[in-house]
Amino acid sequence: MKDDPDRKPSLAEATLAGDRRALARVLTHIENDTDLGRRALDTLFPHTGNAHIIGITGPPGGGKSTLVNEFIRTWRKQGRQVAVIAVDPSSPLTGGATLGDRIRMQEWFADDGVFVRSMASRRFGGGLAQNTLAVAHAFDAAGFDPIVIETVGTGQDEVSIAALAMTTLLIQVPGTGDGVQSLKAGSLEIGDVLVVTKGDRPEAAELARDLRNIRMIGLAAGSEVGGWEVPVVRTSAITGDGIDNLTTAIASHRQWLQTSGDGAQRVRAMIAAEISVRVQQGLLGRLSEQNHDHLEALIDRVVSRNLTAARAADELLSGM
Amino acid sequence: MKDDPDRKPSLAEATLAGDRRALARVLTHIENDTDLGRRALDTLFPHTGNAHIIGITGPPGGGKSTLVNEFIRTWRKQGRQVAVIAVDPSSPLTGGATLGDRIRMQEWFADDGVFVRSMASRRFGGGLAQNTLAVAHAFDAAGFDPIVIETVGTGQDEVSIAALAMTTLLIQVPGTGDGVQSLKAGSLEIGDVLVVTKGDRPEAAELARDLRNIRMIGLAAGSEVGGWEVPVVRTSAITGDGIDNLTTAIASHRQWLQTSGDGAQRVRAMIAAEISVRVQQGLLGRLSEQNHDHLEALIDRVVSRNLTAARAADELLSGM
Repeated sequence: MKDDPDRKPSLAEATLAGDRRALARVLTHIENDTDLGRRALDTLFPHTGNAHIIGITGPPGGGKSTLVNEFIRTWRKQGRQVAVIAVDPSSPLTGGATLGDRIRMQEWFADDGVFVRSMASRRFGGGLAQNTLAVAHAFDAAGFDPIVIETVGTGQDEVSIAALAMTTLLIQVPGTGDGVQSLKAGSLEIGDVLVVTKGDRPEAAELARDLRNIRMIGLAAGSEVGGWEVPVVRTSAITGDGIDNLTTAIASHRQWLQTSGDGAQRVRAMIAAEISVRVQQGLLGRLSEQNHDHLEALIDRVVSRNLTAARAADELLSGM
Repeated sequence: MKDDPDRKPSLAEATLAGDRRALARVLTHIENDTDLGRRALDTLFPHTGNAHIIGITGPPGGGKSTLVNEFIRTWRKQGRQVAVIAVDPSSPLTGGATLGDRIRMQEWFADDGVFVRSMASRRFGGGLAQNTLAVAHAFDAAGFDPIVIETVGTGQDEVSIAALAMTTLLIQVPGTGDGVQSLKAGSLEIGDVLVVTKGDRPEAAELARDLRNIRMIGLAAGSEVGGWEVPVVRTSAITGDGIDNLTTAIASHRQWLQTSGDGAQRVRAMIAAEISVRVQQGLLGRLSEQNHDHLEALIDRVVSRNLTAARAADELLSGM
């Protein structure tokens, strides 16, 4: 099959009709932000807005993949179609997420109701957020619910992924750092549900208790808005404990989003973020296309320490 | 003392003359991107370009702070003035890096040749990179060398910080993840020096060997340019092993940057990145100021699924 422009509408329509191969091809076009991908999205987008988009974030080796596998098992029993978007730092050397992806795909390979997609983050430029949401839209239109966005990392990345999800699970691993380090990692307030994985480890109970205490302090300081009490759930891949509590907590948060009206606010914020990122990318593209010689001359002046980067940026901005 | 606009030049000049209190105040202005900060940078910038800017990145609890402390000890013995910029995800709840910062500051509090500065990354918007480099410029002008930029996290954040440093140390911790997870974390290729901390752990030798093997594969695949052989150094905070090897590796990389010409290329890339981030910030500011009503109307149309975010962004871009 060829991606002939004349076939585009049928590709998106095939996706809506449940064709998984069409979906896979649409995803590739969306990820690469091709014209075909954009037009497919035009067709798919009116059919979105139904899925629960769940973000899961935590350190590498923190047990995210195991958790996601357990979720898939639970949701499949409920007859739901599950999509997973695994976001990984790009790695030309190791091929990014492909290995972990392939391993996980094996288990669900024969199941049409599960779709795992890996996305490598580009080295620079932040195109990740816009593509992640666009891919989620395609899954949403194709009838997947929930859609899990799984990310490695703590820090800026984690925070921006939280802006893309309706419910964010933040994973904390016992026994990997002391108290100060754990506090330094910060970002606790982006989690709608805090998860202590490897709950069978001796340090797990203490970590869960510490997190509950920090949450209480946050509560007292008014950092939790709208009445959602962030639960702290301890899970163990070995004993299987906590998975039911966790899927219940996720369902409760979804329910709360709907009844409190906070859900509509989040969707609006997600859309604002998506537009903002796309404008940013567009402007950067414009900059790199149009002002190349001027930019190089300015860089020369900064390299020779005759001009600060701030002034160089001002000069470029004044001409845009 | 008040930051009277008429006093600005003397604040920057006092910084150049070695006044640490002036430097601290300049840093605050630079971090907040005030007019005074920008003008101080105009004065300071011609005096920059001497320092070795070193990035250290790795997971929370990975032993970065301990390592930096050992570096400070070594470099102070060599009579060098050392600046550390600790970049942390912002945490309104925990106050970000302040706790860890304060603990480290104690040891060097009485030493004017050591300056540790914590920077909290803003929740959104990526102002971090531009401010980090601007703060590094101030340290550079004030005679600090080396300047260490220490960041928590793996992922996008890590990659962008690597773009700000001449020499990047990437920390890998033994016993925190299985092989696949470790590969998934990726980003190995951003490291000029790979560091295995907690080298006294039983898994450390194996991890170091794995990293050397991956490096060899990368070498074969041509991923290492210009002839720098990325060393893998194992350190232990308990035994003190490896610190000398590591500071030697850092010095070798600096030497290699100078002799190979790769250093000039990196400086140019760093400056291009700094300008690009500043233009991006400026354009985003312009967007948020000028198109508010239009933006809200567009968001409404996306919320009601009548328009994709990509089309909304195009419409905004066409009017800019």
